[in-house]
Amino acid sequence: MNSLTIALDVMGGDYGPSVTLASASKALFEHPNLNLLLVGQQTVIEPWLTSQTASIQQRCQLLHADQVVEMDERPVSALRTKRQSSMRLALEAVAAGDASACVSAGNTGALMTMSKLILKTLPGIERPALITALPTMDGGRLHMLDLGANVDCDSETLFQFALMGSAMTQVVENIPQPRVALLNIGEEEIKGNDQIKQTAQLLQSCDDLNYSGYIEGNAIFMGHADVVVCDGFVGNICLKTCEGLTSLILTSLFPKKQLPKWKKWLIGLVFPGAVKLKKAMNPDQYNGASLLGLRGIVVKSHGNADVGAMAAAISEAVLEVERQVPKRIADMLESALLGN
Amino acid sequence: MNSLTIALDVMGGDYGPSVTLASASKALFEHPNLNLLLVGQQTVIEPWLTSQTASIQQRCQLLHADQVVEMDERPVSALRTKRQSSMRLALEAVAAGDASACVSAGNTGALMTMSKLILKTLPGIERPALITALPTMDGGRLHMLDLGANVDCDSETLFQFALMGSAMTQVVENIPQPRVALLNIGEEEIKGNDQIKQTAQLLQSCDDLNYSGYIEGNAIFMGHADVVVCDGFVGNICLKTCEGLTSLILTSLFPKKQLPKWKKWLIGLVFPGAVKLKKAMNPDQYNGASLLGLRGIVVKSHGNADVGAMAAAISEAVLEVERQVPKRIADMLESALLGN
Repeated sequence: MNSLTIALDVMGGDYGPSVTLASASKALFEHPNLNLLLVGQQTVIEPWLTSQTASIQQRCQLLHADQVVEMDERPVSALRTKRQSSMRLALEAVAAGDASACVSAGNTGALMTMSKLILKTLPGIERPALITALPTMDGGRLHMLDLGANVDCDSETLFQFALMGSAMTQVVENIPQPRVALLNIGEEEIKGNDQIKQTAQLLQSCDDLNYSGYIEGNAIFMGHADVVVCDGFVGNICLKTCEGLTSLILTSLFPKKQLPKWKKWLIGLVFPGAVKLKKAMNPDQYNGASLLGLRGIVVKSHGNADVGAMAAAISEAVLEVERQVPKRIADMLESALLGN
Repeated sequence: MNSLTIALDVMGGDYGPSVTLASASKALFEHPNLNLLLVGQQTVIEPWLTSQTASIQQRCQLLHADQVVEMDERPVSALRTKRQSSMRLALEAVAAGDASACVSAGNTGALMTMSKLILKTLPGIERPALITALPTMDGGRLHMLDLGANVDCDSETLFQFALMGSAMTQVVENIPQPRVALLNIGEEEIKGNDQIKQTAQLLQSCDDLNYSGYIEGNAIFMGHADVVVCDGFVGNICLKTCEGLTSLILTSLFPKKQLPKWKKWLIGLVFPGAVKLKKAMNPDQYNGASLLGLRGIVVKSHGNADVGAMAAAISEAVLEVERQVPKRIADMLESALLGN
């Protein structure tokens, strides 16, 4: 197993270094081939680093960054004024080849804008998209994009998302011809707005895609599709609504107060579904959305990720480096977008 | 309690008369003041009617309709060619004053288009919207619109939705100043597309609204808002995604095979949250979305509603008739839209 280096934006996220540094330890423990480039304020990272074991210290490198991109900062302003930010320097490390991927829990818009400028998009791709994996009823996974990187998308952009999503799913799930569906308000051809109908035509006429038609919101989790395509506005709201509903349900099933052991045991005995469900719905394992369509790997963690969830985002980056996702997507896109 | 008459589109929905007629019985039993105008094919309704008790027969009237609007028919084509359809005749009965409301589980687009033509919109309202109530974590309810009647909405339309949703919530929930939130991909002012930002400005500057700002998908169910405003494309996908996820969770918790009684009893004892949740999440009680902004009451049931869910939609119509929803909304809109 070759060693690899990932640049971690230590300052990003709602909780900053308190979560990112703890998740760094966890990820280093889980992936023996992982090295980390810790990008952020030296005065914060150095004390943490000196408190670690020698072997951890050897696998970490500190890159000082003077600035931090705020969570509510306008992307354009971050681009202009935050040239020394941890987010930007982490991305520049990827561009320079000092790291194979960047992981950040920071401002999504800024990460997207900076990534595009610094890493550039793949040939034929205009705008990167955020993609993540979600569980399906049949025990499988689906990949959904875009989840908020692009709030306005025309049909050509949605078509590119479909190509990238299909390529990504082939690579990480080992599915030769992923079923690609377009999120819409009905399954019938007459349903939807003009942008959706035009996209459907593009998808239908593309030989490189296994297009399976429209999919409605209620069918997303049924396992009928491997890739679900939508614009970033709809995708973001859809995903966050699912998170809110899941949290509502889990809280009502498993109240915060600790259950006595005998009760847990009894629940497990008479009600195995509940225990299985709690495990399956643990949002940590689905943290880490990838910014797809760049000439490099960028994984965006949830802003409010805890240590486990942040470590899952780093693991996602490790997987993508090992599978050489951007290169393999570029190869596949070449035939679909440029070769024809 | 004054008696009231509701026109029921017997032919509408995925299951047609087999569900609508059974739900008619249920609704008549639940509401002693209810009379029904059963609109549909005589050869289907008459045999059912003659099998009923004399008192039920007295409270039902049959209105024969030659045609049926298909579920996948284009609204414009239904408008032109289905002048004798059960949907259209049910709406015309409301316009003529023969019924106080129309309930249909048929084609949403056709119902919307026909309603607008036959019943007309309220003064100042351009396009009707679909609104429904959803449960919140704190045991309350929120009202969300639009849920699919309008796939493209400009900021003025979304503003009108906010006014109507606020008025509706005042009337049916007895909340003097409902908190109105705009669904967006972030809570910060910079988030969202132009249409959302323009709508926020309109909402902020309206004295008749208690505007509480942007709301993200994950916060919908937290009880932070009484009214959630979005365009019909986003609303439809968001609602259906919630339905799909709920069904996934309920199926995994309570598999289809019947549990033995002792096990149910044991689950109730050690795990009351699960039983409470199952009851709270029963989608039947949230069936029945109202088409708001018309000079009459139209309630749209889910196409695949079963008897209980369809009866809930009829109950929603009964409530709106009793509370005189369109009249009270018109009064409130007058000050907000026309009085200023």
